[in-house]
Amino acid sequence: MTEQSTRLTRIPEKARFERADLDQLLDTVHIGHVGVIVDDLPVVFPTAVARDGDRLLIHGSTGSPWMRRVADGAPVSIAVTGFDGLVVARSAFESSIHYRSAVLFGTCQHITDAADKAHCLDQITGALLPGRLVELRPPTKKELAATLVMALPIERWSLKVSAGWPDDPPDDVAGPAWAGVIPAWISYGDPIAAPDLTAGIAVTPSVQRFAENRSSDPR
Amino acid sequence: MTEQSTRLTRIPEKARFERADLDQLLDTVHIGHVGVIVDDLPVVFPTAVARDGDRLLIHGSTGSPWMRRVADGAPVSIAVTGFDGLVVARSAFESSIHYRSAVLFGTCQHITDAADKAHCLDQITGALLPGRLVELRPPTKKELAATLVMALPIERWSLKVSAGWPDDPPDDVAGPAWAGVIPAWISYGDPIAAPDLTAGIAVTPSVQRFAENRSSDPR
Repeated sequence: MTEQSTRLTRIPEKARFERADLDQLLDTVHIGHVGVIVDDLPVVFPTAVARDGDRLLIHGSTGSPWMRRVADGAPVSIAVTGFDGLVVARSAFESSIHYRSAVLFGTCQHITDAADKAHCLDQITGALLPGRLVELRPPTKKELAATLVMALPIERWSLKVSAGWPDDPPDDVAGPAWAGVIPAWISYGDPIAAPDLTAGIAVTPSVQRFAENRSSDPR
Repeated sequence: MTEQSTRLTRIPEKARFERADLDQLLDTVHIGHVGVIVDDLPVVFPTAVARDGDRLLIHGSTGSPWMRRVADGAPVSIAVTGFDGLVVARSAFESSIHYRSAVLFGTCQHITDAADKAHCLDQITGALLPGRLVELRPPTKKELAATLVMALPIERWSLKVSAGWPDDPPDDVAGPAWAGVIPAWISYGDPIAAPDLTAGIAVTPSVQRFAENRSSDPR
């Protein structure tokens, strides 16, 4: 078997520089990890992320000290990671993970303009559950006041994608160990109604559509 | 009442203080996000994590500047997050995510003792794919030399779990919107053999067992 065919068309790990590849990740994975320095020490925490054009939106409670630090303009790094499978190589050394990994850097803009803030929150809601927004009442002033909204400009970022086959040296390829890939993705189960749901309220279209697309490999 | 609905009767978001709850998360989610300060700025990157008793293990290439910074003893924060579903509330404000979120703090020990280093790498391999280790040749000296292994003592950590129903106020509960939960988990597909796999090598027991357990809700 030739070198070319063993590698197929994919290189095991590759930096990507196309904005479209970054956007594809940011538009499918909505959990990000924010890094910020607090009291001279690094802190990492997860939060929902959603892209709005050239900015990555996050939001949180005004009661969160870490979020307030981000809103105050502390430099941040935000990682968005898709876990796509296990690379089962013929050695522990070559065994690895299929992933898409974006790391963004910069300083978040604290969104205080009322119209933009409402727009950003709508974007986040729509990213997490497409079509849900039109099924909901608008946010109240009190809710808006309790929410911090921040936007990181998508300017400084790196993207790495690992999507290849095990890259074993010839001695290992000639050996007895199985090698391959176990694909992974996020599955969603049937929607479960809240115990206090009023009898007779059916699952709404956004949730129904989401459920129908569940368990599909999103790549 | 099913086991699942019993689990969902927990309050919406709760800090947990039991080490057993932390260990349950660290023993099921093997992607972590490491935060470290580099050139006075925060950096976050994903990496595999595995628990070994009272320490959380990570490893990386000696060629990675960020990993070297961690190995050099820079303070770190490591977040380990399980994504368990969407909380579909009757307002955008109350809509949220089911998650388990651990954040650990401290300074990693750079593991240089040969026996401990080999032990740690074995732990990582076994955590990601249980039973795989015995199917593989041991690491070579060259492979060990190219690998940084670090251990964060599990001493300073916080754990938050969101696993409850939507927490809508009475006015919203009385309204027309559907509310509930869409559970989520990681699914694994059928193992795919590498193109250069020698004909006749069957899927090995570790991979077979992993595949048989795929798509099951890991919680």
